[in-house]
Amino acid sequence: METVVETLHMNKGAGETSYAMNSFVQRKIISLTNQATEKAIMEILCSKRRPITKMGIADLGCSSGPNALRVISEIVEAINATSSLLNHQAPKELMFYMNDLFTNDFNNIFASLPSFHKKIRQQKSNYNNGNIGSNCFVSAVPGSFYGRLFPTKSLHFVHSSSSLHWLSQVPCGLEDERGRGLNKGKLYISKSSPNCVLEAYLQQFQNNFSQFLESRSQEMINGGLMVLSFMGRKSKDPTSANCCYQWELLANALMTMVSEGLVKEEDVDSFNAPYYAPCFEELKIEIEKEGSFMVNSYETYEVDWDDGMELQSDDNDLLGRKMSSGERVAKTIRAVVESMLESHFGSHIMDDLFQRYAKLVEDHLSKTRTKYINLVISLVKRQ
Amino acid sequence: METVVETLHMNKGAGETSYAMNSFVQRKIISLTNQATEKAIMEILCSKRRPITKMGIADLGCSSGPNALRVISEIVEAINATSSLLNHQAPKELMFYMNDLFTNDFNNIFASLPSFHKKIRQQKSNYNNGNIGSNCFVSAVPGSFYGRLFPTKSLHFVHSSSSLHWLSQVPCGLEDERGRGLNKGKLYISKSSPNCVLEAYLQQFQNNFSQFLESRSQEMINGGLMVLSFMGRKSKDPTSANCCYQWELLANALMTMVSEGLVKEEDVDSFNAPYYAPCFEELKIEIEKEGSFMVNSYETYEVDWDDGMELQSDDNDLLGRKMSSGERVAKTIRAVVESMLESHFGSHIMDDLFQRYAKLVEDHLSKTRTKYINLVISLVKRQ
Repeated sequence: METVVETLHMNKGAGETSYAMNSFVQRKIISLTNQATEKAIMEILCSKRRPITKMGIADLGCSSGPNALRVISEIVEAINATSSLLNHQAPKELMFYMNDLFTNDFNNIFASLPSFHKKIRQQKSNYNNGNIGSNCFVSAVPGSFYGRLFPTKSLHFVHSSSSLHWLSQVPCGLEDERGRGLNKGKLYISKSSPNCVLEAYLQQFQNNFSQFLESRSQEMINGGLMVLSFMGRKSKDPTSANCCYQWELLANALMTMVSEGLVKEEDVDSFNAPYYAPCFEELKIEIEKEGSFMVNSYETYEVDWDDGMELQSDDNDLLGRKMSSGERVAKTIRAVVESMLESHFGSHIMDDLFQRYAKLVEDHLSKTRTKYINLVISLVKRQ
Repeated sequence: METVVETLHMNKGAGETSYAMNSFVQRKIISLTNQATEKAIMEILCSKRRPITKMGIADLGCSSGPNALRVISEIVEAINATSSLLNHQAPKELMFYMNDLFTNDFNNIFASLPSFHKKIRQQKSNYNNGNIGSNCFVSAVPGSFYGRLFPTKSLHFVHSSSSLHWLSQVPCGLEDERGRGLNKGKLYISKSSPNCVLEAYLQQFQNNFSQFLESRSQEMINGGLMVLSFMGRKSKDPTSANCCYQWELLANALMTMVSEGLVKEEDVDSFNAPYYAPCFEELKIEIEKEGSFMVNSYETYEVDWDDGMELQSDDNDLLGRKMSSGERVAKTIRAVVESMLESHFGSHIMDDLFQRYAKLVEDHLSKTRTKYINLVISLVKRQ
């Protein structure tokens, strides 16, 4: 079984189809976690009798591009503001660990570190108080967050945004005994998927989420907090449109290419996205089973497919034409899933596929404003 | 003043002129530190009354390519072997910090991490002893080692090979009041350099080496050890051939291009390498001035310009021709200095320059076997 470790990475670099240039929805989603993050920082800084001198902070699935360091600078700002408010000594040293898979473009993040450090120094100078403003040590820790990444009891705060919906691998059991795909004509759970497909996906998610909790449980100090944000659903039904329809349309685009002989039908049948959008009840079961975390708070947010794109300074395409909503959504999805699709279908069909996809998305959005459901959950490590 | 942080990086990727494919001399030099490293690990593991559970280890100036992770796996092996020999519990958790400048190709290192972890698990299984074999956590910490990189008292062992001869910037004061270069026709200290050039270089080295010691002094635990290996000289004379002649020949190659009108003479006059090859006495003065380290051991090694290249599996050029010694040396130097020369002279002259350089090196080596002098110094942090 090919693992996600080998094939999933956001599109590299800073070009037209790069994740760095097409991650506005994710930026919007990060902003949804701001409140939970600020609350978590407040609880951590208030919880100890003596001021914390060294604070370990991890961003899991940090990706690359401008979002990666934005998360950290917002955390630094929250620590400074909270320390100032509490009239506490801020932690002297903040250790930031940026995590993503081995194939993530860490070079891209590091190239922005000098200007990040400049910005942090400026933030510091906004406080007329020698107790505020910590030394920041930023490092990269590549690897899968479904296993151990950090030494024992080294983390006070864990943040993860738009990452935990990615599974460590495609679920097992999605083929019949002759190796033919069971999820015919689809890329993810769909109304037409047989029940065994739904079960296989849930099983894989349960395994992964419990591995995630077990690993963090060892790495976090007691009383430490996690703020996790990822795609999910409100409905208990895993085939509901809010959690599947972006995949449904991508499958439709591929099937038009099948009908024109450009893609083999069995290639579509055998591709299944290593993705799962859980509901809160599914999370709760795993959290209780693992036992070392308590749910501190929990929110759901509806996010438009093209949300955050008004932040994009220049949304014209290469020919100077104003992009349609469908094209913008297609570009965002392409930056995320292209590495996986390429390794299965070949890179030669990508431009054609995403043009078709953009049209289907445009057509869909003109009829129904399907939204993503984003879950934001805050967990505290039991004392 | 343009700093080294912005322009110095080993050639990226894994192609013909990459550092990854042209770092055999550096590999040879790393092997010279093996003995000092093993001795240092032994002292660290013996020095504490109770077994160390978490051990922090930094490789400063790790570069990219196969050498980067080779250093770590040799350290892991030394820790396992020593713990086994002492019949000690090995440290449970090893935290490895790979450091280099922001523009280093860390992606290249991370791509090899999965196979590195496999190798470590194999090493572990060679010991029939549950006490041997630690969990390894590998992270990247980009930034200049002439400033703080790590939290206070977080390091037990520091390794650095082929890096400390790079200064943080070109020395100040190498221009006259009209902005013309004083080190005429040269790239580094030379027999013809005026005295002020020698003084400026020494001053910059002193500043940098003391910044290095001060930063490590805060980051290392008492009793921690550093093994540092870098280009230097035996003679007190900073113009001696062993420490300068590779630059002398590169300057000669550029001057032949000046005489043909391909390069401007003032461009050669105004380029000065941010490099210094110190003698032991110069190191000692800074170590004593800073005060927190003691010299544990000190060795000098002579290294052939083309040493280690017998390790190269395929040393034919792209046309299948066997490469001359001069060509091989030129390729090694190119992988290291090209990023700096390109930003000053332009990338268009690089192929021509290094072809001329290869011929001059070949001619020189046929007459005199000039050698590099490599210093290996082991320092212990005072209790």
